[in-house]
Amino acid sequence: MVCKQPEREIFMSSYSSLNQAELRCEYESVTAAFDACKARGLKLNMARGKPSKLQLDLVSDILTVLTDPDDCITDGVDARNYGELEGLKCAREYWADVLGCKWTETFVGGAASLTLMYDVISKAYTHGLVDSPRPWCKEETVKFLCPSPGYDRHFRITESFGFELITVPMTADGPDMDMVEELVKDSAVKGIWCVPKYSNPEGVIYADETVRRFAALKPVAPDFVIMWDNAYCVHEFAGEFKPFADIISMCAEAGRPNMVYEFASTSKITFPGAGISVMASSEENICYMTKLMGVQMISYDKVNQLRHVRYLKDKATTLELMKRHAQLMAPKFQMVLSKLEENIAPLGFASWNKPTGGYFVSLNTMPGTAKRALALCAEAGVTMTGAGATYPYGIDPNDSNIRIAPSLPPVEELEKAMDVFCICLKMAALEKLLES
Amino acid sequence: MVCKQPEREIFMSSYSSLNQAELRCEYESVTAAFDACKARGLKLNMARGKPSKLQLDLVSDILTVLTDPDDCITDGVDARNYGELEGLKCAREYWADVLGCKWTETFVGGAASLTLMYDVISKAYTHGLVDSPRPWCKEETVKFLCPSPGYDRHFRITESFGFELITVPMTADGPDMDMVEELVKDSAVKGIWCVPKYSNPEGVIYADETVRRFAALKPVAPDFVIMWDNAYCVHEFAGEFKPFADIISMCAEAGRPNMVYEFASTSKITFPGAGISVMASSEENICYMTKLMGVQMISYDKVNQLRHVRYLKDKATTLELMKRHAQLMAPKFQMVLSKLEENIAPLGFASWNKPTGGYFVSLNTMPGTAKRALALCAEAGVTMTGAGATYPYGIDPNDSNIRIAPSLPPVEELEKAMDVFCICLKMAALEKLLES
Repeated sequence: MVCKQPEREIFMSSYSSLNQAELRCEYESVTAAFDACKARGLKLNMARGKPSKLQLDLVSDILTVLTDPDDCITDGVDARNYGELEGLKCAREYWADVLGCKWTETFVGGAASLTLMYDVISKAYTHGLVDSPRPWCKEETVKFLCPSPGYDRHFRITESFGFELITVPMTADGPDMDMVEELVKDSAVKGIWCVPKYSNPEGVIYADETVRRFAALKPVAPDFVIMWDNAYCVHEFAGEFKPFADIISMCAEAGRPNMVYEFASTSKITFPGAGISVMASSEENICYMTKLMGVQMISYDKVNQLRHVRYLKDKATTLELMKRHAQLMAPKFQMVLSKLEENIAPLGFASWNKPTGGYFVSLNTMPGTAKRALALCAEAGVTMTGAGATYPYGIDPNDSNIRIAPSLPPVEELEKAMDVFCICLKMAALEKLLES
Repeated sequence: MVCKQPEREIFMSSYSSLNQAELRCEYESVTAAFDACKARGLKLNMARGKPSKLQLDLVSDILTVLTDPDDCITDGVDARNYGELEGLKCAREYWADVLGCKWTETFVGGAASLTLMYDVISKAYTHGLVDSPRPWCKEETVKFLCPSPGYDRHFRITESFGFELITVPMTADGPDMDMVEELVKDSAVKGIWCVPKYSNPEGVIYADETVRRFAALKPVAPDFVIMWDNAYCVHEFAGEFKPFADIISMCAEAGRPNMVYEFASTSKITFPGAGISVMASSEENICYMTKLMGVQMISYDKVNQLRHVRYLKDKATTLELMKRHAQLMAPKFQMVLSKLEENIAPLGFASWNKPTGGYFVSLNTMPGTAKRALALCAEAGVTMTGAGATYPYGIDPNDSNIRIAPSLPPVEELEKAMDVFCICLKMAALEKLLES
């Protein structure tokens, strides 16, 4: 069959307005473009929120901030030796400054805040939390709320302990709070995952009202826990720093001081593989967790904690560094968004967010085609986060959501990758339209 | 009452040969010495196997071994970024060289090998090990063997999960293997803690025959695990390096490849608070644990792994460094032993080991007096490891064993501390003898 219309013309029309013949024609041209991509033997990666080499190079001075023994002493403590389970005081003060809580409400960890989150859930399971009637492993059923699309590694922690994961839809203001308030009436519902600022993957900043409703929650389970992963708390790539509320004092004021654990790390500030992390919560929670953590370790790496404090200094200095990260990140997000705007927007079958911070663009393509689109991407040498990853159990009921992580590749590679990605989105959508 | 004999004379006689009057006389003179100590307002610490400042200063060059971005690349991997859950290949190769196993049998961790041990036990509890019929939290009873005197932090891990701890006596050749072989016929017995070289606290090196019997164990529990904490594998302070067997290949040859997990760290090679650690086991175990660890982290601190590999290089270079540690450690052990020899040996109520490596001297004083002796030490300003700490649940049935950790204080402080310690040992023994 010969294609009558010039490619560009069809290209710019919404797929829903095309008849079968036109769709077939478009499909032929998209398939040809796909084959051409494949032939180029690309190897591009937009799978993970991995900072780029240029971002890592920004902070090279951290490698030489401690060079001799005297540098390793702080507040009379030798960071090189054993001790200080909760972290160096100066590191706890650093995080208190960044998060807006008290330093006594912090516990400073190693390279991964994920490990601290796992510790909270794991210890809830084996020993129970402060207000638990019993360890969660002794409960008949444990249910956990998963605002979705969300972060696969969060969901996987709770899945790994056999909890029942309940999807809560995300709105432009954060998780659907009407639904959350309803669900916490079930005593088996023990907690919720949250990324309150630049949510992963949608880049949503929870509205003040959402945060207020979280702090005011009165779950039936006395040990219900809000896992408040403030992973992107200072991670604007466009515009000025947006202040955020101190959820810890808000929960205390609302009468449930032990309900929230907040997390953050320098993974996307200094080195992803060699940063420091923090867990912040009520003093009672920190004291309880410290006792349990004391069984498994003497302390996290305090030399690296000190390296970070000496280098990052405080929140103000950190925000200056984040401006330099932003200069590297912004063009990448612009590339992703302009490619989508140019190639996909006119076709009317997909929508996406336009974040100003965080690490992702979340795209919803034609239902039932996300998996296929990403399989095509893989075939053409572009690795993306697996389809479904943003939903509990890795299953997106609509097979529609795709997480784009543009931080790692240089802009010129990203451009190529986005061209391939747009072609694959179209091809999967057309296959769907043609089969019906 | 006036003391008839000169102090020195009684001092050098075995307490068992003294009559009540002589004992009372000695008690008076010892009490006077104790009061004099107290008046000096000492503050000395022999509680923990903490390396001294001079030891930490030995390795200061490790702080500047990585100074710019190019230094952070190894085998095509950027140590600064995410990834490499099992550790950098070069770090795995380093540990394989030290332990005499294959690099594919290693998993490199953060600052604390204790955390890796906890992870194995914790995951056995929540998920089960490779050969577990079910997670240990689903077992009616879990029993764990604790060769004693032993390491309190080991025992505490298994205690924290509610396991029943069973004391196995230590002999000069390691744990009493007749008893171990008998106990593993009980299917509820799931594992044993071991420190095979310079055991904590006795400094015993397991005999070849003991190691062979461990590898040949045929426990009824299919998931019985030998927790082989090789904490002092290169930690001679007197004499030449003593080679040790590769327990991993020995277990494999004996037909139970998944029965052992070995651990080690650089805590007493570089920095206790900022070293690297390793877990070594069969490839199947490492693969299984890596899958479970992948839920809680993306990787341990790889920059610090690389720092260590570049600095320590290999086993031979590490052994050279350990000779320099030995020069600092040996005089401290000599001081402890000579003080005991001089002040306590003639009195006949205590015995102790004379180790050539490791971090401790283990002393058995008159039964029923260890707690009292250490309480007196505390009163006189000398902090020791708590009495009973070397036994399960912190309860020494004989109230006799005391762990002396001489590494931290300078020799001149150690001398003062040992004088106080010897006086307190005597005073507690005399109190006991006088009450009967």
